[in-house]
This record gives sequence, C-alpha cells and structure tokens, in this order.
Amino acid sequence: MERAAPPRPDTGKRELDLRRVAIDTYRENVAYLHRDCVLYRAEGFQALSKVEISNNGQRILAVLNVVDDDHIVNAGQLGLSEQAFDQLGLAEGTQVQIDHAEPPASMEAVRRKMRGERLGLGDLRGIARDIRENRYSKMELAAFLVASSEGGLDRDEVLYLTQAMVETGKRMNWKEALVADKHCIGGVPGNRTSMLIVPIVAAHGMLIPKTSSRAITSPAGTADTMEVLANVDLSPVQLHDIVRHQRGCLAWGGTANLAPVDDVLIAVERPLGIDSAGQMVASILSKKIAAGSTHLLVDIPIGPTAKMRHMREALALRKLFEFVGDRLGLHLEVMLTDGRQPIGRGIGPVLEARDVMQVLENDPDAPHDLRQKSLQLAGRILEFDPDVRGGNGYAIARDILESGRALEKMRQIIMVQGAQPMPLEPSPLTLEIPAPEDGVVNRIDNFQLARIARLAGAPMDKGAGVDLLKKLGDPVQAGEPMYRLHARFPADFQFARRLAEQQSGYQVGDTQDIPPGFVLS
Amino acid sequence: MERAAPPRPDTGKRELDLRRVAIDTYRENVAYLHRDCVLYRAEGFQALSKVEISNNGQRILAVLNVVDDDHIVNAGQLGLSEQAFDQLGLAEGTQVQIDHAEPPASMEAVRRKMRGERLGLGDLRGIARDIRENRYSKMELAAFLVASSEGGLDRDEVLYLTQAMVETGKRMNWKEALVADKHCIGGVPGNRTSMLIVPIVAAHGMLIPKTSSRAITSPAGTADTMEVLANVDLSPVQLHDIVRHQRGCLAWGGTANLAPVDDVLIAVERPLGIDSAGQMVASILSKKIAAGSTHLLVDIPIGPTAKMRHMREALALRKLFEFVGDRLGLHLEVMLTDGRQPIGRGIGPVLEARDVMQVLENDPDAPHDLRQKSLQLAGRILEFDPDVRGGNGYAIARDILESGRALEKMRQIIMVQGAQPMPLEPSPLTLEIPAPEDGVVNRIDNFQLARIARLAGAPMDKGAGVDLLKKLGDPVQAGEPMYRLHARFPADFQFARRLAEQQSGYQVGDTQDIPPGFVLS
Repeated sequence: MERAAPPRPDTGKRELDLRRVAIDTYRENVAYLHRDCVLYRAEGFQALSKVEISNNGQRILAVLNVVDDDHIVNAGQLGLSEQAFDQLGLAEGTQVQIDHAEPPASMEAVRRKMRGERLGLGDLRGIARDIRENRYSKMELAAFLVASSEGGLDRDEVLYLTQAMVETGKRMNWKEALVADKHCIGGVPGNRTSMLIVPIVAAHGMLIPKTSSRAITSPAGTADTMEVLANVDLSPVQLHDIVRHQRGCLAWGGTANLAPVDDVLIAVERPLGIDSAGQMVASILSKKIAAGSTHLLVDIPIGPTAKMRHMREALALRKLFEFVGDRLGLHLEVMLTDGRQPIGRGIGPVLEARDVMQVLENDPDAPHDLRQKSLQLAGRILEFDPDVRGGNGYAIARDILESGRALEKMRQIIMVQGAQPMPLEPSPLTLEIPAPEDGVVNRIDNFQLARIARLAGAPMDKGAGVDLLKKLGDPVQAGEPMYRLHARFPADFQFARRLAEQQSGYQVGDTQDIPPGFVLS
Repeated sequence: MERAAPPRPDTGKRELDLRRVAIDTYRENVAYLHRDCVLYRAEGFQALSKVEISNNGQRILAVLNVVDDDHIVNAGQLGLSEQAFDQLGLAEGTQVQIDHAEPPASMEAVRRKMRGERLGLGDLRGIARDIRENRYSKMELAAFLVASSEGGLDRDEVLYLTQAMVETGKRMNWKEALVADKHCIGGVPGNRTSMLIVPIVAAHGMLIPKTSSRAITSPAGTADTMEVLANVDLSPVQLHDIVRHQRGCLAWGGTANLAPVDDVLIAVERPLGIDSAGQMVASILSKKIAAGSTHLLVDIPIGPTAKMRHMREALALRKLFEFVGDRLGLHLEVMLTDGRQPIGRGIGPVLEARDVMQVLENDPDAPHDLRQKSLQLAGRILEFDPDVRGGNGYAIARDILESGRALEKMRQIIMVQGAQPMPLEPSPLTLEIPAPEDGVVNRIDNFQLARIARLAGAPMDKGAGVDLLKKLGDPVQAGEPMYRLHARFPADFQFARRLAEQQSGYQVGDTQDIPPGFVLS
C-alpha cells in the first residue's frame, strides 16, 4: 500500500522551488518533476498529465515530464521549460504550487466541433485566446486542427477564426489608405514573382511592405532567395523606415508578433501534413490583416502536381478567400494561374535570384514565364490604385520593368536592407539529367523537382538546386540535358543524383499529352 | 547569411555522441539537441521537428527539443529521453546520425480518415504497428483519435482496430474452454460488483482471472478498493498460480503487456476528454481478448448522470460490443443496468470495501442494490456454464453467497494475494451534509458525488470519500443527514466541504421527479 499512496506530509506543504530548465519545447509548456518528488505520486500525476503551476494568482498550464536526474531538477524542485518559465515570470527559487489542471475552457468548444457542431465567434475567440496563452498542449492543438480540417469549418467559422487570430496579436498600421500585398498559396518551385512585383509596384509609388517566410518544406522561400542579394532580418523599426522611404521591402516576416496563434497552429499542422482550405485561408488572411495590408492579391496556381489540382477546388478556395476578405474589410482579388510546371528556370536560392535579376535587367535570356506572370500579377496590383484605369495595369508594369525603373528600385531596396558583400555562385558539383528518348517534354512534376533540389542542399546551401534547361512543350533528343543539378557537398550530390536518376520528374513523349492549360491568367 | 546557413563541416561529418537524458516523456520519443550543435541549424531542424536517429540500420523516430544547457547535452551530443534511448538500444557514446524523418507511413491512412474515408484492416494494422513502435508523436496520436472519434469509425473499422490492437501485443492463454470476465463501462460511483462476482463465480468453479485498473478520474477503481484488503500487484507468474488454484483473482492489470497500443491511446484520449463508443469498444475488447477471456459480460449503466444517458445510445453501444465480440470469437453478453445513482453506500476505497464485505458476510445492513446487482451479473456469468440451465444462474449465485461459500472464497483469494496486515478505517474528519427541506431524495448526481469524494482525498487517501445515508426514493426531513464526508487531511476536508455545501449533488422534492428507471435488469 505504501507504493500506491505515500503519505502526504502532514504539514500539508505542497510547494516546490521553481527552476528554469534550459530546454526549448517550442511553445508547449513542459513541467519537469523528479520521480522522487513527494507530490508526484501523492497527487496521482502521470507523465503527460496537464498540470497547473501557480503562485499568488500567477498561473500557467504545462504538460508533465518525469525526471530521474538531480541535475535537471531535484525532488524539491519544479522545473519549467524555457518558454513556460518566461511566461510564468517568476524568479528561480520562488515557491510554487502544482495541481491537476482542468483542460482549457475552450476545449469544450473543440469537443463540440469534433461532434460536428458549428462554432460561433465567441467559441473561436476563446480557442484563439487559450492558444495565445499557451494553454493548449500539442495534443489539444492537434485535436482542434483535425476537428476543423477537411471541411470541418464552414465559411462563417473560417471568418471567425481569422478574426480571432487577428485579435490575439499585434496589428500594424501604416497610416495610408492603400497598403498592397500579394501571396501565393505555394506548391510551385521557382515562382519568385514577389521579387519582381515589389520593385515594380514600389517604383509606381504604391506602398508594398512585403514580408515573406523562409522555406520550410520547399527548396527556397522568398526570404531565402532575397537573402542571396541582401540582408532580410530587419527589426520592426528598420522595416518601417525602409518602407517609408522606398515604398517597399523584401524582408523576412519572422520577427513581428503578428497573428501569433497562426504560428502555433502551423507548427502542428506541418508535421501532421494538414493543409485544409479553411486553415489556409485563416492563416494567410490573419497574417496579412495583422500586417496592415488593405489590398491583397492571392495567386492560386493550378496543375496536376500543384496544391490545387482541379479547377473546381481552386474556385471553391477563391470564393472562401473572397468571402473572408470582404467581411474583414480587406480588398482582395484572386488570380488563378498556371501551376503545371515550375515558374522560371532555377530552383534554389541562388538560381532563383539569378532568374529574378535577369528579368529585372531585361536580359533577352530571362525566363519568359517568370517575367510574364510577374507582370500580370503586378499589373493587377497596380489597378488597386484608383488612378489607374482598369486594364492598364499590365502595360504600366511592363513600362516600369522595361524602362529600368524596377531594376533601379530593386537596387535601392538591396542597398538599404544591406547588400550581401559577395555575389554567390551556383554550387560547383553539377550533373545534367538527360532526356530518355526523342520527343517533347510533356510532364514536369513540381513535387519531385522540389524534392531533388532539397536533397541537393537547398535552401541551406544557397547555391544548390536544380536548373531547368527544358520546359513543357520543348522538343528534346535522347541524351540531351533536361536539367542540371547543383550541389556543394558530395553527400548531398549523391543523394540528389540517386533520386533524379531513379525518377527524374520529367516525362518525354507526345505533345498531346501535355496537361491542358485550363488557366490563362 | 552566416546566421541562416552555418557552413557544414567539409568533412561531411554528421554524427553525434548518443546520450541518455533521464526524462520520462511517457511513450513519446524526444530527442535533445544543443542549440549550438552545428547540425541543428544546418539541417533546418526546428523544435517539434520529427527526426530520425540511426546507427547502422538501427533507427527510431523522435520529436526534437532544443537545449541550452551543456549539462543536459552538449553541442556534440544527441540526447534521447528514457524510453527512446531504451528503444534504440545502443550504448551512451555511440556515434549516431540524425536526419529529417518522414512521418510514419500509416499517417497516410490517418489523413484519409480525416477526409472521411473508410479504413481497412491493413490500414489499421499499419497504424497499430507504427504506434506500437513509438513512431507516432503525441500530435499524430491525437490526430488519429480525433479523426476516428464521434462516429468517425464504422463498426467494421472498430472491429479492425480491435483486431490490430490485439495483434500488436502479448496474448494470454489459460488453456481452458471457458475463461469468464466482466467489465463495466464506468461512470457510476461505488458499484464494486467485481469484488462480489469474482468470489461467487470462482466458488462455482468457473475460471475468472479478473484484472482491474486503478482509478484515474474516479474516486476508486476495483484495484484501489481490493488493495484495502489485499496486495494487488501480482507478477504474471503469481497471478497464474493464484488463478490455477483459486479459479479467480482480483489483481491490478497494469503489469502485463496486453494490447499496449490501447495504453498509448488512452494516455492521449484522457487529457483530450475523448470518449467515443468506437474507441471504448476497441479498447475494452482488445484488452479482454489479449487477457485470454472467452466469455465476457459487459455492464452498461444508464441514467441522467451516467455515461449513457439515453436508452438509444446504450442500445447502439450494446450492438457495437456484440458485433465486434462475435467476429473475434468472444462470447459476449451485455446487461443494461440502472445507473441513476451510485451503487452501494460507500464512495472511496475503504468505504466501498466495507460495503463489499457486508454483502459477503450476509450482514442484514448490507447495501441491497449492490447485492442485487452483483447477484444478477454473477448469475448471467454462471449461465455461460453449459451445465447451468438458462434462468438458474441467479439462484445459484444467491445460494453461493448465502451459504457463505463466496465469503470463504474471498478470504482465500485475499490470503493468497497477501492480506493487508492492518484493517483500514474510514478517515477521521467527518461532516454530515443535511437535507435542505422535507421530501424525498429524487436526484443524485453521480458526477458531483464522485468529484466530492475525490476532493476529500480518494483514492490516494484510502479512507476518504463519501458515505451515502440516503438513496433515491428515501424520505428525508430538513436537516437530516443525506451523506457523510470522510477525509484525513484538513485541506482536503475543507475543499470537499466547500464543494458539497455549494452543490451537494442531491435533490430533495417530490417522488414523481425521480428519474424513470427504464432499466430493470
């Protein structure tokens, strides 16, 4: 019986000394209790139990890990992971209490969602607040995401979630009537249009404070590619200053505390491979609204290996974007674009930056598709300007590009953000992947090319990646190179080579097998 | 740029020294990497990333935590939580590699389930195997549970899940044609029928190797209550020996490795408050089949504050039990029982053990409802015996009880399991909760009484709990005691007292407001 119920100390003392445990558990609060701690068994705690740690009204929730090493915590201490310690905000050695925690109040709404019920704005506000305050464990976050994925949220609920995510973070205010932004839902390698749109739009005088992410699962994000040319880690003060003077920037968006609930959800969505339309719309729009955007152009590529594979799902996504954007006062337009193959030639930061500079420099060898798509998107953004006549945006964008004003603007942005001192070259180990037979390139698998580029070392090795020598519809002869691998490290090179030789991601055959381009702007 | 991409060591060395970190993360593998470790940023790992740790073909998956303390791991080490270290099975100091991990292959089936598709036996086998091998993170477990809760599994899928959970653990074989067991789905305090059924059934000569759980969220489990009288922590060898000689036992079920996937799922279900019929049936039946049971009686109490509140859901649950039991070769019967109030008088281990012994001793004061229900259930189990004529079970059970043979059997079981040396008394601090007015007790809230008993200290303080002095239908006068609190520690006593005075869980009024007893055996 002693094993099951060690007597509680008769003093009723239930306090432990607070200790900071230098482990980063990424936004999940973890409490560490020694296995010999008298409260551990007495309270019937178990590993994974949710506990509440408190001192005079200060309280946080955490998940319990049990420790068998006095160096981490001893039997009289309660350890907290780094974020949890910061959140509680008390000094080491403070006496704290530990108790069984009730789940966050809003989990009741999550359970209703699991049963298929609709949630109201109040429910989603409660959920966002509890997530913001780190009251959700990873398991609870996963429960919310799964219950609300795959059609689990109707459009009103997506609206409420977006609104709740905006409300639970900071919101920037540029104090201008027109703050433009663009966003691509992703899935198409290359496709570095932002680095062309921003200089064009800013050269026109429209405010476009573009912040971007680094690649997580892709071979390059806009931030990774811009970093080939300039510093992208800007403080909020620097960013404001640059935008005021240049009308635009190309910065990494990780430093501002915008829609922080979105960051928490993404950190769980990604390992789970959850990518539902409702979550995507709420995630993108909450970030854009928090960033102070008033006008947004959303790029939705469609193609057999893009995120959107069918027109009907792309249209449903477009309507969801429009519905939420309209109700939150964001002027939002959607362009459905051709996502049948990578845009531009390079896949990987250096190769993509090269493509971008070729277009800006009006190099006749510049990739035509990247130029065209960027001009179309930039044109639509320019038409947000009340003084631009409908239909004239594209021509204005082209003039800005062809006149060299876009290149000039890009050079200024690079200079004020801080130019990289040394130009980077594509990585030196190369291999050309040959066409298997005579014919026409009729399939390029976005996903496979991205995978090969990542194995080659992109984005960490900036010069690594894939350089496409042939695109859809190009005739090839057997043995003629279709694309070139670049890698810096022999191990990466071998990995990428093996995958490319196994399955190149290209298909050569008849012209008629090219997937139909159901999208023409 | 240095911040984003520290150059990889040109040697291509990507190995780290393995270290055991003495933290119990409960079946979730956690890897600890120092923030200054060259591989941490080079590989683009993030906290919460899923990583694969390998050495010469040995490999495990883990979730990454980032460490800022050399005492836990230094920059050249890779730490693993206790279970992860044991699972990898290599010595400290071994050189290991760390890589980005693909999610477990069966997550593809989980994502199909999230989209509402049906899963086949192969899918659920893959999921169970991956869970068994600790390839699922807590988030992934939560995703599976949420996707398959609340009607997410049809009955074939529940069957497949049960089968897959049995296959992924050990299975006991008693080498007899009839191995009886019973299980109550829970939710009704008191209700300690197993401690009466086992001696009756074993005295008849039928094999009934009963293992039970300890309380997790209730004030007492059968294991907690039996522990008042005898040791319940039996090794598998002891348990077999006792069952062979006594035909029955009343042991804690935690030591055998039966349906281990169920334990993992329960550890996530509980904090999430998931309690769906499909998961419940798969959980219960996988454990019983793995324990070698051939005949099972399931007790489903129904009442306004029981788990099953309506006859229609109880019937749906019964059919699901029958469907899965039949297909897995388990002879299964279900009894729907009266769950309108606690069964017996005591709530808490000592008080419940007292009730049980009163019934066994044929004490005229023994709680009638506990005696009746136990005889009915035992009678149904006795009718599993081909030699017992249908309808005679109850009379046989009553004879065994009234003749003292059940008491004699219980004494033998207590003796061979190891009798507790000192009889335990109800805890000394007491308070009687009085009736608010004259009338008849017409509601008793199971949940509230359980909560009060837990606050009083049950099950850790064995003598703590609630002793019911009045039951449904009993007339009371204003001020007359309805029930008595027992606690050992003043703090517990005050907590329980405050809750009981705030909301007693009793309602006094007209007889006609007693909830209809739609269940009569």
